[in-house]
Amino acid sequence: MAVTMDELARALEARSWGDLTIRVTGAAEPSQVEPAGPEGGRIALAMSPKYAEALKPGSIAILAEGMEPERYGLKAAIFAPRPRLVMAGLTRAFDPGPDIAPGIHPSAVIDPSARIGEGAAIAPLAVIGADVEIGPRARIGAHVSIGRGSRIGADAVLHPGVRIAHGVTAGDRLIVQPNASIGGDGFSFVTPEESGIEEIRRTLGKRQQIKAQHWTRIHSLGGVELGNDVEIGANSAIDRGTIRATQVGSGTKIDNLVQLGHNVVIGRDCLICGQAGVAGSARLGDRVVLAGKVGVNDNIEIGDDVIAGAAAKIFTRVPAGRVILGNPAVKMETQMEIQRAMRRLPRFAQQLSKLQETVTRLLEKG
Amino acid sequence: MAVTMDELARALEARSWGDLTIRVTGAAEPSQVEPAGPEGGRIALAMSPKYAEALKPGSIAILAEGMEPERYGLKAAIFAPRPRLVMAGLTRAFDPGPDIAPGIHPSAVIDPSARIGEGAAIAPLAVIGADVEIGPRARIGAHVSIGRGSRIGADAVLHPGVRIAHGVTAGDRLIVQPNASIGGDGFSFVTPEESGIEEIRRTLGKRQQIKAQHWTRIHSLGGVELGNDVEIGANSAIDRGTIRATQVGSGTKIDNLVQLGHNVVIGRDCLICGQAGVAGSARLGDRVVLAGKVGVNDNIEIGDDVIAGAAAKIFTRVPAGRVILGNPAVKMETQMEIQRAMRRLPRFAQQLSKLQETVTRLLEKG
Amino acid sequence: MAVTMDELARALEARSWGDLTIRVTGAAEPSQVEPAGPEGGRIALAMSPKYAEALKPGSIAILAEGMEPERYGLKAAIFAPRPRLVMAGLTRAFDPGPDIAPGIHPSAVIDPSARIGEGAAIAPLAVIGADVEIGPRARIGAHVSIGRGSRIGADAVLHPGVRIAHGVTAGDRLIVQPNASIGGDGFSFVTPEESGIEEIRRTLGKRQQIKAQHWTRIHSLGGVELGNDVEIGANSAIDRGTIRATQVGSGTKIDNLVQLGHNVVIGRDCLICGQAGVAGSARLGDRVVLAGKVGVNDNIEIGDDVIAGAAAKIFTRVPAGRVILGNPAVKMETQMEIQRAMRRLPRFAQQLSKLQETVTRLLEKG
Repeated sequence: MAVTMDELARALEARSWGDLTIRVTGAAEPSQVEPAGPEGGRIALAMSPKYAEALKPGSIAILAEGMEPERYGLKAAIFAPRPRLVMAGLTRAFDPGPDIAPGIHPSAVIDPSARIGEGAAIAPLAVIGADVEIGPRARIGAHVSIGRGSRIGADAVLHPGVRIAHGVTAGDRLIVQPNASIGGDGFSFVTPEESGIEEIRRTLGKRQQIKAQHWTRIHSLGGVELGNDVEIGANSAIDRGTIRATQVGSGTKIDNLVQLGHNVVIGRDCLICGQAGVAGSARLGDRVVLAGKVGVNDNIEIGDDVIAGAAAKIFTRVPAGRVILGNPAVKMETQMEIQRAMRRLPRFAQQLSKLQETVTRLLEKG
Repeated sequence: MAVTMDELARALEARSWGDLTIRVTGAAEPSQVEPAGPEGGRIALAMSPKYAEALKPGSIAILAEGMEPERYGLKAAIFAPRPRLVMAGLTRAFDPGPDIAPGIHPSAVIDPSARIGEGAAIAPLAVIGADVEIGPRARIGAHVSIGRGSRIGADAVLHPGVRIAHGVTAGDRLIVQPNASIGGDGFSFVTPEESGIEEIRRTLGKRQQIKAQHWTRIHSLGGVELGNDVEIGANSAIDRGTIRATQVGSGTKIDNLVQLGHNVVIGRDCLICGQAGVAGSARLGDRVVLAGKVGVNDNIEIGDDVIAGAAAKIFTRVPAGRVILGNPAVKMETQMEIQRAMRRLPRFAQQLSKLQETVTRLLEKG
Repeated sequence: MAVTMDELARALEARSWGDLTIRVTGAAEPSQVEPAGPEGGRIALAMSPKYAEALKPGSIAILAEGMEPERYGLKAAIFAPRPRLVMAGLTRAFDPGPDIAPGIHPSAVIDPSARIGEGAAIAPLAVIGADVEIGPRARIGAHVSIGRGSRIGADAVLHPGVRIAHGVTAGDRLIVQPNASIGGDGFSFVTPEESGIEEIRRTLGKRQQIKAQHWTRIHSLGGVELGNDVEIGANSAIDRGTIRATQVGSGTKIDNLVQLGHNVVIGRDCLICGQAGVAGSARLGDRVVLAGKVGVNDNIEIGDDVIAGAAAKIFTRVPAGRVILGNPAVKMETQMEIQRAMRRLPRFAQQLSKLQETVTRLLEKG
């Protein structure tokens, strides 16, 4: 996995400087990088002058445009016009990938009717159900289970312990982190007569008589459909749809411990951060960003390009392009104003009561 | 799995219309349903006039009471007086169930002392511990583990990857979604002397000197007791109790990514939605509803029939029947008033400062 | 697992009273404890006069200092100067531990290059990768997977379904609850040009033109490093670092469904409660307490001994020793004031508008 500085610079489509024959064996923070020897060395990630202070002379580094390799006594350097973008290429180059050996491990339990694509790897103790289809070069980790009739595209990586239920379809290059669950049953129940929840939605909080009723299950006949280039985080859960499939569009990335309820539709190229939750039948457009711990109410629509700040709780539809924050979520600038005012609230209270006294005195005087 | 319209109508106890000999092969949204042919066809779920617009003539459908099958050119129809209740019966009729084949798979590792009920199915690579008891017709999915001495009632369905620790007992018809964990150790620690948390609970936020102390573990000797007809969602976690069992009452349904701490007691027929959390030793009455992302503080009591709206954070006891919202949670109507006032806060601030100026001028004039 | 009252009192370093030869077979709440017979009996946990009311004469109990065993007709008693601390010793004494039998189960799939310490137990169907190192007396549960080159110290307990990816190192006495995932890939993506998120962080909410861009993955080359005496809860997820390791300091305890993002650094002896989340590259000092559902923004620093109350959302750095609460989190006493003022807000609004009328009248009169 070692490449020369020249090869690395070309792979990153980046400008380079110095001795480009030096071999790069990995990447690290500047303080952890020793000078490059005859065998080469690790490349220091020093894309800001602050981090670059720790560079040792004789080492190799990635610098931001405008930084001077001579100043740090470097042997060679690569310049990153957009540091995080260079990080993407660099980390891809050095990632040995997950611990899934090539070939099909004999301990895996694979139904004879399953179709496994060419070059696919199946780790120990995976369970592949009837009529499952796994694309070429896919890598299925230890203890993964895939239910009856599900389809996983080419070049997928399913990390250990991932659960794919029956009736799930995924495009190419799917990545699922450990212990995520795709295709559990939706959380959908009904009472014989109107339930308390239905009542307060209708009356906005008023209740008449409270009835003891049991919950009857609405079963989930729909599956889950994932587009291409979808990634799903560790211990996240995506429920199957009731009648049609729960959907996640191509290019969408989902973090850890995220919940997508039944019938949810997520557009393309969205970013759903850690511990966010989208309740049943909500619909998100394309390129929507939900920061950590955001909640989306059931049955509402979030337009394209909406960005919801950390911990925003979204109770009503949001038009395209809006940036929102708070609980309940409102426009970010409104929320900022509300927060400023809230911090001044105790002072308001004092001012108001003082003013009341003053006016009372004025009235008495008058 | 095909039934006639007549059979389906009877199963749903619903009024029907038209050619009741047509065979129903499944259910779908109106736009996806083709006209029924000689083999029958899928039934369209068209319980509101809005959805019904997409009905194709010659198809079969479920309509709301009062809708006219002739208007849409249907061949046959079933009338749903309470649409969601009909959905329950309909989806149950067509659910093929999870991918767990009958019989005991030879790759499962089952302790000889375990008692497996008649007709129970055990999927590949499940691990069943000593003295475990599994009820008749239960279905245990792939990669499930059940610890020493736990008991699962009749007709249970444990989806793949579910963890049942030792000392867990469950009634009949338990459903556990993929990768849920029941019976992990409680999160309970103590420091040799008063900890910072204990200090601020005592002083309401004031601290004197801060001591460096280590946490000592309080072990969890209690188990978990689940009633009948309990359902637990994907990747949820229910901790075992310290001395007595953590309890979930019959008929209670728990969604994905929910946390129930040690010693928690949940009543009957509750609904605990996605990503809600109930901290250690809290007690919920019967028919309590916690919407998504609700948090319940440790050691407090929530009365029967309480409904907590999405993301409510409950810090103190709540009397029976109350509908609450917000952080900290208060009565729903109070929270609505607070929210209205908050949105107007920036304007208040302006009005107040203007009023101050006016009064100052009045005073000067006076 | 039975001990005498005398042995138990010595193990707890606690004062005792009565017949110390009685055998203790377990512990329970007072109402569930029967009088001790010739075989001994369970010890009642009656550390407050309220609980002690349920004690039956002839039983054995743990009392708080100052309580009188004669009053309850006890046969023997142990006095707990700090009840929760006594609980720690007592529950440890009676905990039979997880259901992991000694020895290496033949169904486990262990790479020949793995080094398993003396006395370690490996349960059925565990998967241990190449070059993995497992310390002496460690107990690895059913369906656990450990990836290439990871190291687990002595006396570790990994409960069923735990995922340890490649490149994870842990000290001694690690405890991981069921289905937790350690070492999933970080959630780190970049767009070719500035993304909407970067734009609004720069402009504080303002957006110009919205561009359709795809997310490119930044791979995670760093691992995860856990100190000694770390505990991690059920279904929690700790991501690996980008270049250096994500770190959790010795003595830190993490509850269920907690998310730690890539590059996060957690100090020593912290307590991270259920459903808390710490976003990428945030740093926590020593002895920090995050209560349930707390969120910590990415890239910020939380000083030593900070205590964040339940559901606090922390957006900016917090100095050492501070007690914080709210969303956004502020000093606890400030938050209490804000909450009091918020509850009075609707009344403020009325008072303000009344005052405006009064002043208007005054002006007209003037």
